[in-house]
Amino acid sequence: MNDSSHSNMVKPEDTPELRQLYADFASEHLSPLWTQIEDLVPFVPSPKAVPHVWKWDRLYPLAERSGDLVPVGRGGERRAIGLANPGLGGKAFISPTLWAAIQYLGPHETAPEHRHSQNAFRFVVEGEGVWTVVNGDPVRMSRGDLLLTPGWHFHGHHNSTDKAMAWIDGLDLPFCYQTDVGFFEFGSDRVTDYATPRFSRGERLWSHPGLRPLSELKDTVSSPVGAYRWEHTDRALTEQLLLEDEGQPATVAQGHAAVRYINPTTGGDVMPTIRAEFHRMRQGTVTAPRREVGSSVFQVFEGSGSVFLDGNENKLGKGDLFVVPSWIPWSLQAETQLDLFRFSDAPVMERLHFDRTLVEERRR
Amino acid sequence: MNDSSHSNMVKPEDTPELRQLYADFASEHLSPLWTQIEDLVPFVPSPKAVPHVWKWDRLYPLAERSGDLVPVGRGGERRAIGLANPGLGGKAFISPTLWAAIQYLGPHETAPEHRHSQNAFRFVVEGEGVWTVVNGDPVRMSRGDLLLTPGWHFHGHHNSTDKAMAWIDGLDLPFCYQTDVGFFEFGSDRVTDYATPRFSRGERLWSHPGLRPLSELKDTVSSPVGAYRWEHTDRALTEQLLLEDEGQPATVAQGHAAVRYINPTTGGDVMPTIRAEFHRMRQGTVTAPRREVGSSVFQVFEGSGSVFLDGNENKLGKGDLFVVPSWIPWSLQAETQLDLFRFSDAPVMERLHFDRTLVEERRR
Amino acid sequence: MNDSSHSNMVKPEDTPELRQLYADFASEHLSPLWTQIEDLVPFVPSPKAVPHVWKWDRLYPLAERSGDLVPVGRGGERRAIGLANPGLGGKAFISPTLWAAIQYLGPHETAPEHRHSQNAFRFVVEGEGVWTVVNGDPVRMSRGDLLLTPGWHFHGHHNSTDKAMAWIDGLDLPFCYQTDVGFFEFGSDRVTDYATPRFSRGERLWSHPGLRPLSELKDTVSSPVGAYRWEHTDRALTEQLLLEDEGQPATVAQGHAAVRYINPTTGGDVMPTIRAEFHRMRQGTVTAPRREVGSSVFQVFEGSGSVFLDGNENKLGKGDLFVVPSWIPWSLQAETQLDLFRFSDAPVMERLHFDRTLVEERRR
Amino acid sequence: MNDSSHSNMVKPEDTPELRQLYADFASEHLSPLWTQIEDLVPFVPSPKAVPHVWKWDRLYPLAERSGDLVPVGRGGERRAIGLANPGLGGKAFISPTLWAAIQYLGPHETAPEHRHSQNAFRFVVEGEGVWTVVNGDPVRMSRGDLLLTPGWHFHGHHNSTDKAMAWIDGLDLPFCYQTDVGFFEFGSDRVTDYATPRFSRGERLWSHPGLRPLSELKDTVSSPVGAYRWEHTDRALTEQLLLEDEGQPATVAQGHAAVRYINPTTGGDVMPTIRAEFHRMRQGTVTAPRREVGSSVFQVFEGSGSVFLDGNENKLGKGDLFVVPSWIPWSLQAETQLDLFRFSDAPVMERLHFDRTLVEERRR
Repeated sequence: MNDSSHSNMVKPEDTPELRQLYADFASEHLSPLWTQIEDLVPFVPSPKAVPHVWKWDRLYPLAERSGDLVPVGRGGERRAIGLANPGLGGKAFISPTLWAAIQYLGPHETAPEHRHSQNAFRFVVEGEGVWTVVNGDPVRMSRGDLLLTPGWHFHGHHNSTDKAMAWIDGLDLPFCYQTDVGFFEFGSDRVTDYATPRFSRGERLWSHPGLRPLSELKDTVSSPVGAYRWEHTDRALTEQLLLEDEGQPATVAQGHAAVRYINPTTGGDVMPTIRAEFHRMRQGTVTAPRREVGSSVFQVFEGSGSVFLDGNENKLGKGDLFVVPSWIPWSLQAETQLDLFRFSDAPVMERLHFDRTLVEERRR
Repeated sequence: MNDSSHSNMVKPEDTPELRQLYADFASEHLSPLWTQIEDLVPFVPSPKAVPHVWKWDRLYPLAERSGDLVPVGRGGERRAIGLANPGLGGKAFISPTLWAAIQYLGPHETAPEHRHSQNAFRFVVEGEGVWTVVNGDPVRMSRGDLLLTPGWHFHGHHNSTDKAMAWIDGLDLPFCYQTDVGFFEFGSDRVTDYATPRFSRGERLWSHPGLRPLSELKDTVSSPVGAYRWEHTDRALTEQLLLEDEGQPATVAQGHAAVRYINPTTGGDVMPTIRAEFHRMRQGTVTAPRREVGSSVFQVFEGSGSVFLDGNENKLGKGDLFVVPSWIPWSLQAETQLDLFRFSDAPVMERLHFDRTLVEERRR
Repeated sequence: MNDSSHSNMVKPEDTPELRQLYADFASEHLSPLWTQIEDLVPFVPSPKAVPHVWKWDRLYPLAERSGDLVPVGRGGERRAIGLANPGLGGKAFISPTLWAAIQYLGPHETAPEHRHSQNAFRFVVEGEGVWTVVNGDPVRMSRGDLLLTPGWHFHGHHNSTDKAMAWIDGLDLPFCYQTDVGFFEFGSDRVTDYATPRFSRGERLWSHPGLRPLSELKDTVSSPVGAYRWEHTDRALTEQLLLEDEGQPATVAQGHAAVRYINPTTGGDVMPTIRAEFHRMRQGTVTAPRREVGSSVFQVFEGSGSVFLDGNENKLGKGDLFVVPSWIPWSLQAETQLDLFRFSDAPVMERLHFDRTLVEERRR
Repeated sequence: MNDSSHSNMVKPEDTPELRQLYADFASEHLSPLWTQIEDLVPFVPSPKAVPHVWKWDRLYPLAERSGDLVPVGRGGERRAIGLANPGLGGKAFISPTLWAAIQYLGPHETAPEHRHSQNAFRFVVEGEGVWTVVNGDPVRMSRGDLLLTPGWHFHGHHNSTDKAMAWIDGLDLPFCYQTDVGFFEFGSDRVTDYATPRFSRGERLWSHPGLRPLSELKDTVSSPVGAYRWEHTDRALTEQLLLEDEGQPATVAQGHAAVRYINPTTGGDVMPTIRAEFHRMRQGTVTAPRREVGSSVFQVFEGSGSVFLDGNENKLGKGDLFVVPSWIPWSLQAETQLDLFRFSDAPVMERLHFDRTLVEERRR
């Protein structure tokens, strides 16, 4: 027998003795495998999380209203509104491992400093004027930038302008919550440095391609760079498409340029639990449907198109976010040139050797 | 401000507008951080799982009764009774990452072959007569042995004797369940080889200290050894204590010998998510209280003593099992010479850089 | 006894029997340790190679004269003049592991393509107009650039201008020669691509700080970048000194900025046997005398100063090269701001765990 | 053009000006590539070392005579007679990277303690009665054992019996000599511990298959085991051949069992520069001719057969040694069951990515 079902299983007879046995199990804090194996050990990953799309033009006004009604400060720590996967019972978890939130900071507000085991980043889909201060280093946040606050780095934010700003936070918070690994500590109630330099010290030390400061030869668990600027990302993607035009290998698939953000001390992912990538698809490009173990979150940075999630088409515009739970088939279609930021828990899957990918035959 | 409490937090005023905002959040599948930060981002790990001890002399009779009432075969797959942490709502999870069960196989019974992404092992506290067949290689199970069935290895068990046998299964099943990584496949309804050799082929190829077959030079994700025999474990621990007697460094602490089971191709843990160790404490030895990120399960192999879990003493005898959830202080006290098997999710914590340990000053 | 000398050694008596024994050794291709141990196993590394300085204004005219008298083409392959360590018996080895040469290419000349196991690079102290074509990818060579041709990459050079150009070649050729590891193969008699793009394809794909093409996720033994441009090196060093001015940690020592060229896929050295670095010292800076296992070659890129080699001062000007054999103490003194390129065999020493460094107390 | 010859090379015209140029090169310590490229950059490795066989029945009597004529003690340090490759000009180097010597210790003699950067081992083809004391740990030396003294470990030897003993020393001494990496230090003039335990402390701590002491979790550059006993090697080889008989994959080729000695903390080679293996061939087995980058030394442990070195057959008996220089084709033929110990510089080649192997079609 080798069919994919537990249906014709060998079952115990329902007798008073069996019921008594089950009652005795319960009183001894025991629970049999044979009654729950279908749920616990599925044939393929069967996430409770569901695919879902959040529209930026619905999120942003709610963030604005929070700006009016909810103070930001010590205790609540952040005016961050988490995207709650409809399949996960209302908890602000976009997937079982990932957190995604829109964070909003009004004119001249400060989000106080703290640190935690959870790895975090911010990605900016629009706006500017906020500096995030990471271990004392002020880091400008502008459209298209990826900013890191790896685990146990102090960080706070301040808005130095007269205009509010919102961005996306990504964390491994649900993973940390489920596995009980998180520590948290308050830092300064204000940020420790209100300077607004164009480039952070981390960037000035590290953002030189192929070069490493001789004063920093020890590899670090997370990237020391801190800020990945849009100008570099955009140029890298532009060059990939130009190289493709010249007939050179450069893109991941025809019409599909992509980069991974890396820790320059290792060439690996920026943080131990979170992968971050940026994708650019030429107008009209369609990706082959894929299934991957682990979950991903995408945000449209520019352009419009569709994502097919488990067979259902969802229209996408600037700022829209969607989640792809584990093993759910997905593909993208670019109506215009389509730029997307992506983050995922892939480093967890790869480090623990649970990663698998299935690329389906492309539809014709 | 730097005190360890969220109590004097900045809070929004409870107004109709705020309530409407929260309602609008809910309808858009959003959830604010500021109302749940205490739960989601605790100051130290705050596991839902609780410390708990299961007594072998309560477990074993229940397993025996299952042997009478519950058939073993395709569908239910295993006559395994999971230890359900009282803090985890009745699911058969001993911790958020680990599964521990007592499995029982009657005379001449067979548990059919299957494979799954979940990493598994068996540890034998008493008995003999069962062979587990792992990817076609029959592996004898005897008292004191650790037997591996790493992820995606086919495995089934058969009892070749007239007496029942029970043992402990350990898996990363809860971790896999929470993170949606598991695949499962049926194999043969019987085991593929009913031979009962004293040593498995994997042992004959690999269990020679400091030697590696030249035909097997590629490192493997999990240990290729398959069976770790009691005679080796016992001798290693005996030698450590003798070396200690001779004034040589060998034990982890005075009176406390310990070994880790390893993958000989890398020197690292036997499987990507599970660490396995064996500890021997001289009579009268007390360990310094420790807190560790991640959860552990211990089983007493021989001897008697106590475990202090979060300050509470629990008496231990042969076969008793207990779980230490993340960051719960624990220490052991040996009334007689005390032998314990231990497994944990430490490789997960270390590979993702969440590991932390706090050893408290020893009480005097 | 623990003094550092073999002088009062136990010696055999010089008898006819001993002489016969030694003769019998020789006829059986044997050789005793006890007569040569002082040479073979010194107390500290005792290189045959000596420290030496080559003056650019002596090298360059000789390279020019070679341009008139020696054709470049298949067979001789390169118009390269090796720096021959005076201690190494006339072989063109600057150290037992490293090769350094000045290579000269006249107007519109081509050095044909070939490939070899030896790892190579070029560094340009002055001039422009040559493109090196590496595995078909044309790479511009300009002042301050480091250009790689890792082992077994096809490469040829062509001068696309009306002016000659010279530069420095660095290789692990002596190491490969001593250990018999080298393979060599001819390629095209011309270069395969005479295009003269500003940036090579490798740079366009890889020279974006903190970003990795998703099409190139496999780590490579040598850096895929190919060209490290002066503008990046200069900016990295400038920023380090500015950060030092701001009181931030950034330099290796006060007044001493430095970068290592790295393979972005790993964060490690650019090639398995060769380390490359660039150092900038503020006017007046003096480095602490150091001894290091392994040999290094420096070239002054700009400025003037001195190097103290085994206690002897040597004046340095633009283009001058010097070698530091293993364990010879060296220190640098900057008369003006002093910019130096450095390469060494440090990766060999580190990968085989022979690396040691001794930094002497700074003279006051 | 792509033929494998430098013959039709472009050559400069032999003129007075060229001769003057060459003279000027010499006076400036320069040396052109184009006149020596054939020697420096060969098409395939062209070792100066030659294949050679040393007969044990010629070596041993010479060692005995040394025992009579040459004292052992501080200064000469060891009564070791190096095998001098006939192609390497009389230096006691068996290859450019490796040293092999027969060492002889008379009844109750002591070879004093010292340490050096060079990695060393001893292999015992016959005899017993000597203990080597490594960092204070006495290690019994018996037939078939491999004993390590990794770089910078203090070591001395003493013969506790009334009979002389001889064995083989292997080191990376020539490599260290060529690359100037060696340090040396005297230790005690006697050995620090004259105890004669059956098992060293290192073995008692480490020689348990698949187990690692919890007190020793840090990986070490070289193996902590120290002694690899014949009984384990023999059993591993025996099992491989039995598994082959059962139709199971276990041997490297039909009739050819082999193991590599490994560092249990990493699964890798025992020392950073030296690989050690043991091979057993069934009677009649012939290996496919191979070429490998790097050099190897073999010693026949038991049995008789032939080695074909660069096409020439050499008869082999117990104790005979032979060297295979880089890229020289070799194959073995077993007249009886043939047991061989092998060591090589393969870790150097692999860590620096110069390794290549060419297995020729087996002759029919």
